[in-house]
Amino acid sequence: MSKTLNGIAASDGIAIAPAYLLVEPDLSFSKSTIEAIDEEVARYQKAVADSTAEVEKIRDIAKENLGEEEAQVFEAHLMILNDPEFTGAIEQEIKNQKINAEAALDATAQNFITIFESMTDNPYMQERAADVRDVSKRIMAHLLNKKLPDPASIDHEVIVVAHDLTPSDTAQLNKQYVKGFVTDIGGRTAHSAIMARSLELPAVVGTDSITKDIKDGQMMIADGLDGRAIVEPSDAEVTEYKAKSEAFLEQKAEWRLLKDAPSVTADGKQFIIAANIGTPNDMPGVHENGAEAIGLYRTEFLYMNSSDFPSEDDQFEAYKEVIEGMNGKQVIIRTMDIGGDKHLDYWDLPEEMNPFLGVRAIRLSLMNEEIFRTQLRALLRASAYGKLGIMFPMIGTLGELRKAKAILNDETEKLLAKGVKIGDDLQVGMMIEVPAAAVLADQFAKEVDFFSIGTNDLIQYTMAADRGNENVSYLYQPYNPSVLRLIKQTIDGAHKNGIWVGMCGEAAGDSVMFPILLSMGLDEYSMSATSILRIRSLMKKLNTEDLKELANQACFVSETSEENEQLVKDLMAKLNK
Amino acid sequence: MSKTLNGIAASDGIAIAPAYLLVEPDLSFSKSTIEAIDEEVARYQKAVADSTAEVEKIRDIAKENLGEEEAQVFEAHLMILNDPEFTGAIEQEIKNQKINAEAALDATAQNFITIFESMTDNPYMQERAADVRDVSKRIMAHLLNKKLPDPASIDHEVIVVAHDLTPSDTAQLNKQYVKGFVTDIGGRTAHSAIMARSLELPAVVGTDSITKDIKDGQMMIADGLDGRAIVEPSDAEVTEYKAKSEAFLEQKAEWRLLKDAPSVTADGKQFIIAANIGTPNDMPGVHENGAEAIGLYRTEFLYMNSSDFPSEDDQFEAYKEVIEGMNGKQVIIRTMDIGGDKHLDYWDLPEEMNPFLGVRAIRLSLMNEEIFRTQLRALLRASAYGKLGIMFPMIGTLGELRKAKAILNDETEKLLAKGVKIGDDLQVGMMIEVPAAAVLADQFAKEVDFFSIGTNDLIQYTMAADRGNENVSYLYQPYNPSVLRLIKQTIDGAHKNGIWVGMCGEAAGDSVMFPILLSMGLDEYSMSATSILRIRSLMKKLNTEDLKELANQACFVSETSEENEQLVKDLMAKLNK
Repeated sequence: MSKTLNGIAASDGIAIAPAYLLVEPDLSFSKSTIEAIDEEVARYQKAVADSTAEVEKIRDIAKENLGEEEAQVFEAHLMILNDPEFTGAIEQEIKNQKINAEAALDATAQNFITIFESMTDNPYMQERAADVRDVSKRIMAHLLNKKLPDPASIDHEVIVVAHDLTPSDTAQLNKQYVKGFVTDIGGRTAHSAIMARSLELPAVVGTDSITKDIKDGQMMIADGLDGRAIVEPSDAEVTEYKAKSEAFLEQKAEWRLLKDAPSVTADGKQFIIAANIGTPNDMPGVHENGAEAIGLYRTEFLYMNSSDFPSEDDQFEAYKEVIEGMNGKQVIIRTMDIGGDKHLDYWDLPEEMNPFLGVRAIRLSLMNEEIFRTQLRALLRASAYGKLGIMFPMIGTLGELRKAKAILNDETEKLLAKGVKIGDDLQVGMMIEVPAAAVLADQFAKEVDFFSIGTNDLIQYTMAADRGNENVSYLYQPYNPSVLRLIKQTIDGAHKNGIWVGMCGEAAGDSVMFPILLSMGLDEYSMSATSILRIRSLMKKLNTEDLKELANQACFVSETSEENEQLVKDLMAKLNK
Repeated sequence: MSKTLNGIAASDGIAIAPAYLLVEPDLSFSKSTIEAIDEEVARYQKAVADSTAEVEKIRDIAKENLGEEEAQVFEAHLMILNDPEFTGAIEQEIKNQKINAEAALDATAQNFITIFESMTDNPYMQERAADVRDVSKRIMAHLLNKKLPDPASIDHEVIVVAHDLTPSDTAQLNKQYVKGFVTDIGGRTAHSAIMARSLELPAVVGTDSITKDIKDGQMMIADGLDGRAIVEPSDAEVTEYKAKSEAFLEQKAEWRLLKDAPSVTADGKQFIIAANIGTPNDMPGVHENGAEAIGLYRTEFLYMNSSDFPSEDDQFEAYKEVIEGMNGKQVIIRTMDIGGDKHLDYWDLPEEMNPFLGVRAIRLSLMNEEIFRTQLRALLRASAYGKLGIMFPMIGTLGELRKAKAILNDETEKLLAKGVKIGDDLQVGMMIEVPAAAVLADQFAKEVDFFSIGTNDLIQYTMAADRGNENVSYLYQPYNPSVLRLIKQTIDGAHKNGIWVGMCGEAAGDSVMFPILLSMGLDEYSMSATSILRIRSLMKKLNTEDLKELANQACFVSETSEENEQLVKDLMAKLNK
């Protein structure tokens, strides 16, 4: 009898192969008192040196197989191995406490991890906790003369099964033989999930118990499309999943063909499908997936990946790189959305009781005009290199918009007076994410060149439900008629005033939301680059005539989110017949 | 030259009189080691006994002059004076540390105050900190043979000036001579402000520096209407403020005449003006101000002023008392709105990143069905005693409303099966405070008997601005056209479906908002009892024909909150001509 485990679909595709159980060696140890301190320190130093050599080797393999960026985590590991604050603290612990290296390593590492993990509002330091854990495990294995699993030695096709996959685990995988991942823990944004997508390997994470439910070498199926793992599948199941896999691969090939195709519906209506990016490093994905524009460049990463405010020139270079990279296609750059759940180490902002309802995005920019002006100057200078749209986030009142525009105009005039060139195509727009802005879209539309609807926040405020709070996640309803009415009102308000409107939230790339948005006449759909070809393919199959009634029905006839999901699914089934 | 200080208008009216500086005696002391411990303990016990006698006397004066409720704080003081945990701890400190009573009192009191004040999410314990401070000061004065100021000895008309006024200070005031209060610190909800309103004395609080800017006996004006204190006013200022005072008193007398009058406009349209209450203790104010209904009974106080969940019977008694007290007029009772900024000591809820966007009100009730069912049973049983409306707070989706109604129906059937009587007039309604509910008001209206718009939360979510966060208070705009459109949409959606709609947020009693709401046809206006007569008087002067265009102009022509404020003020000025 086969056994099916449900998990989270973390990376598309289907794999059928025996399981390779990536299990950790037992790294338990006894604490003991040491007389020969010098010898113990030397034994410890050798373990560090061996670990360093090993990590360097893994880094090189990773660089070759996976590229610079994926290898970066090992640079972080090497930094920790070479950090006297860390390795020195362990040596000191051996000497002061007269204890064995294993005990000193464990105690010191735990200390570091606790400190880093307690910084719950700082994702950067939380990642460092994971790095310390990885590095400590490696030193411990060397001290205990044990070998960490070596997936590089795999010489036949397998699906790797693990409790979780660390960066070092995934880096050592030989893609030639590894056909997929299945793990006990993790979500779509876990390191293992991101790595799987970058390797284009099917992956299922969060199965809870796969490491207990399967033995090494047992046959299994990993279904990364629907988030399912099947242990010891029946012949019928193998046949079924082979067919499903083939269909998926065909579809993927079909999607690939659309890379340079325009985004048109079956009846020839043309729209824009754009990409959301965080840094210039995301540009290869933008091109590979045939984005027709950048619909959202989130500039806060420039601030977050920095130890101080980025200078005007640093910002200018980053913006110019993306604008030039798009060869005349439009790039919408959003001014910084700091605050809320995004903090900077070097900017001490007051604690807030409800940060999502506090000083964030444009509110923070308007209160810190010099920082805002620096960003605007960098943007204006970069505008000469292509087609730029500057977009203000979290605008809630016309007063805020007018203030932001006045500052932008002031900087424009100053730059022009100095003879700096500014792009002729420059557009100025705003996010629609505060409910007040959606409700007054007709008035805002008179004062900007475009809107971009930010569904993540618009839904959170409209439903009064924190999008990060699990206990109210049932209220995070993209298809709720109230949300759809506000979106429709925004689109209608924009079109009545002759401006275009896009969407740059997750919803633009959602297969249920997309037909509704098309029915409303949304002009631009901006999404993760990896969603573009799927949506372009879906668009090709849709006839806007068939969708004519959909928007009104979803907004004014349906009463719940569930009804709307069913409505779209039924319509799609009917059209596919 | 006169000097004007701006503060917070804490209690209506104008006083013109010399200042009486209520300054504290110097209660500093030296810490010393004591040999004769028994004598020191006896000295301490005498101070406690003297303090007790004094507080008993003040309590009796307060009871006679101010009533039971205002005297209650002294019962709290007596409890502390008689509490062996407090007084005993001080005795123990004298004995153990061999220190003088002053030092022991100071150290112990500080300990208690620190503990109580650290409970920042518990207003009840914070008040206890103030009580301990008051009591300690009194014992200290007795130990030091000093006399605390004795405002009861005042024998001529004065305005009392103080850094802050403690309950004992205000209780001792002889209203015959005290014409007003002005303080350095405090806000509209400070004890001194509440006391001033109950004494109907003009009060200005939060002037920062009045105790430094005035000398005892200097002439001054306290303008409790506009929150202004004038030191050494000119003759012209005295004349001006005398006229202002007279106009105010005339207006007040005119308002009093409306106590039993219906709430009608100049053209004879009748509406309901109702009161918001927190406990049955608020009922005298409801009657004195001629409320035609209770538009909001906030039941969370029942839970907050309790050391454990209130029993079904305790709740039943509280609800019944209010319902019976209204003699057949409607009472809208809202099911508990716990969560957000309201917490219970005995209910440990998970910490949330954004509590206003988290599990609060109906969300919490639906997740804790037994607690919810207990409240519903108490409400259903109380419904037999008059005209009850049960109202669900923070409804965001039809799914939530249907679930809440199903639970209510289930409890109704169970009670009926047991032969319990349930009122025939029982109505079931919901708050409109989540933007999603306002947007879908037409759909919600089909499934309830009434709406009540909660502007405080509706504004906060629509503008995505925490109403308690000073840094975004500029976004808390009741007159913003987006907020007004949502209110209008709610009223239109209700009327189209034949149900009535009220408002129970602060905005219903706001003089600028009121004409707009009247123009929209809102049916019921629920506010602090003290606002009722002012609004009824305003209503009498307004002709709905004159307001016909106001709603549309405020929603669709105006672009900002400021414009709307001006719009109403201009219209009122025109109508008053």
